[in-house]
Amino acid sequence: MPKRIIIALGGNALGNNLPEQMAAVKETVKAIADLIEEGHQLVVAHGNGPQVGMINVAMTTLSREDPSQPIAPMSVCAAMSQGYIGYDLQNALREELLNRGIRKPVATILTQTIVDPNDPAFRNPTKPIGAFMTAAEAEEMRCRGNAVMEDAGRGWRRCVASPKPQEIVEIETIRTLMEAGQIVIACGGGGIPVYRTEGNHLKGAGAVIDKDLASELMAEQLDADTLIILTAVEKVAVNFGKPNQEWLSELTPAQAKKYIDEGHFAPGSMLPKVQAAVKFAESKPGRTALITLLEKAKDGIAGRTGTAIHQ
Amino acid sequence: MPKRIIIALGGNALGNNLPEQMAAVKETVKAIADLIEEGHQLVVAHGNGPQVGMINVAMTTLSREDPSQPIAPMSVCAAMSQGYIGYDLQNALREELLNRGIRKPVATILTQTIVDPNDPAFRNPTKPIGAFMTAAEAEEMRCRGNAVMEDAGRGWRRCVASPKPQEIVEIETIRTLMEAGQIVIACGGGGIPVYRTEGNHLKGAGAVIDKDLASELMAEQLDADTLIILTAVEKVAVNFGKPNQEWLSELTPAQAKKYIDEGHFAPGSMLPKVQAAVKFAESKPGRTALITLLEKAKDGIAGRTGTAIHQ
Repeated sequence: MPKRIIIALGGNALGNNLPEQMAAVKETVKAIADLIEEGHQLVVAHGNGPQVGMINVAMTTLSREDPSQPIAPMSVCAAMSQGYIGYDLQNALREELLNRGIRKPVATILTQTIVDPNDPAFRNPTKPIGAFMTAAEAEEMRCRGNAVMEDAGRGWRRCVASPKPQEIVEIETIRTLMEAGQIVIACGGGGIPVYRTEGNHLKGAGAVIDKDLASELMAEQLDADTLIILTAVEKVAVNFGKPNQEWLSELTPAQAKKYIDEGHFAPGSMLPKVQAAVKFAESKPGRTALITLLEKAKDGIAGRTGTAIHQ
Repeated sequence: MPKRIIIALGGNALGNNLPEQMAAVKETVKAIADLIEEGHQLVVAHGNGPQVGMINVAMTTLSREDPSQPIAPMSVCAAMSQGYIGYDLQNALREELLNRGIRKPVATILTQTIVDPNDPAFRNPTKPIGAFMTAAEAEEMRCRGNAVMEDAGRGWRRCVASPKPQEIVEIETIRTLMEAGQIVIACGGGGIPVYRTEGNHLKGAGAVIDKDLASELMAEQLDADTLIILTAVEKVAVNFGKPNQEWLSELTPAQAKKYIDEGHFAPGSMLPKVQAAVKFAESKPGRTALITLLEKAKDGIAGRTGTAIHQ
């Protein structure tokens, strides 16, 4: 049975600089093409943490050297990152499909996501972006007015607010293309963060939206059957890394919420993925969220691995 | 009679930095919304000279400061510029339409344009990009291996090859959205320049494609009725700037070609616009190319001003 699938690629699927990205997407698109080859409708979303951070540094450096160029806000950097990533991703996917004899248009839609300017997230930046820094570099960055955080033992990073996505502005465009049988790359980096001001104006927000939550919202708005959230492990586990660790194959939203309450999932890592999965599974009977490895996506859709969350 | 129109915005429609762009697009979209309000189908293309130059400088500066980030090629900079410009343009147009009570989706399609790697243009870079420089700065840039040129008495600029567009890769996507009644921004900066290598691979080219020629190609491929090429004068003139200057209201392709041969149009300025217009007018009976000012587009479509070129 062909399914309507939204797949949310993590940072590992894209690499940390241009050559890494070009190499990484070649592998990434194989798993995506596998799903398309099986007849599923696909919309591909992706993260942009390292990329938007890199672009932000580039634009800030430019502005320091050339005062006629004001510093680009995060929203503009996010828009640029969608171009930067979408170009490589759509090209690689187009090529992989053609190599398999599949002629389907692949296109990237510049996507904006509306957030609430009163979202409490704006008072407490939690989303790490850009390159890792030493403690001394982080302190210098903090002194320049940026929020910084220690990221899961891997070093210091700049961080920005991560408000909840409320609405995908370009959803009609994405739907039209998906229903026409085309492959859409959308909601890159969770979408360009914008909020409503007076009238019909949308203003850029100093934020990066969680791509799993944005993908979940997009999956709801597109009435998808399956939301695939990719991560670095094949299945979700309780007691992760402990002697009594247990891999989970299937969960109801209620079971997942119980495990969330018990603190089994790391904030900023597995927690937002499980939260997004629960939200999708709860949104309508028949909807399944699958959390697994990129290279296991096809097996996961067939019910052979991964953690499936559904009512 | 509703027409299918491709409109190619020039640099003046976008400004030279971020605040200028945000201000410029507010005016630009009024002229576009006028055409949409009259019931025409619109696809909007735009240039990216200053923007792709600015991004190229930012990425080069980053790479100098952080050797882990290799210099981004022109194709990647072009992709980023489509995000940078498309975001502001689609937002402003969406707002202008909503303010007029028109609910039509507006979206930017990341667009690639195929060029011929054997195009002689690659041996003779002619397309100015980026900021104006002094002669001394230009000499320094030349020493770093870049081509530079003096741009119409306004100063020195870096320049890159401008090969002829052969094919718009995402044309099916653009057509699907246009036929669904949506407003598409596509082919920004003439499209991301790519060329075919072995198999189905598309490789980025070190070039910037002329946006008027790319718009012309897109107009042919979309079977448009009208191609509007915007410029800084209301009409095309022969003997421009001379005592016997004469404004032209209507031209056949043959007349236009005669004026081209007589050297009436400046290379890199009016010449490529008239060439693109002739190519479109010659491509099929009933097709009209209109060259005029942005704010005269509506009057031009009504036949009241501008230079119309058709069989």
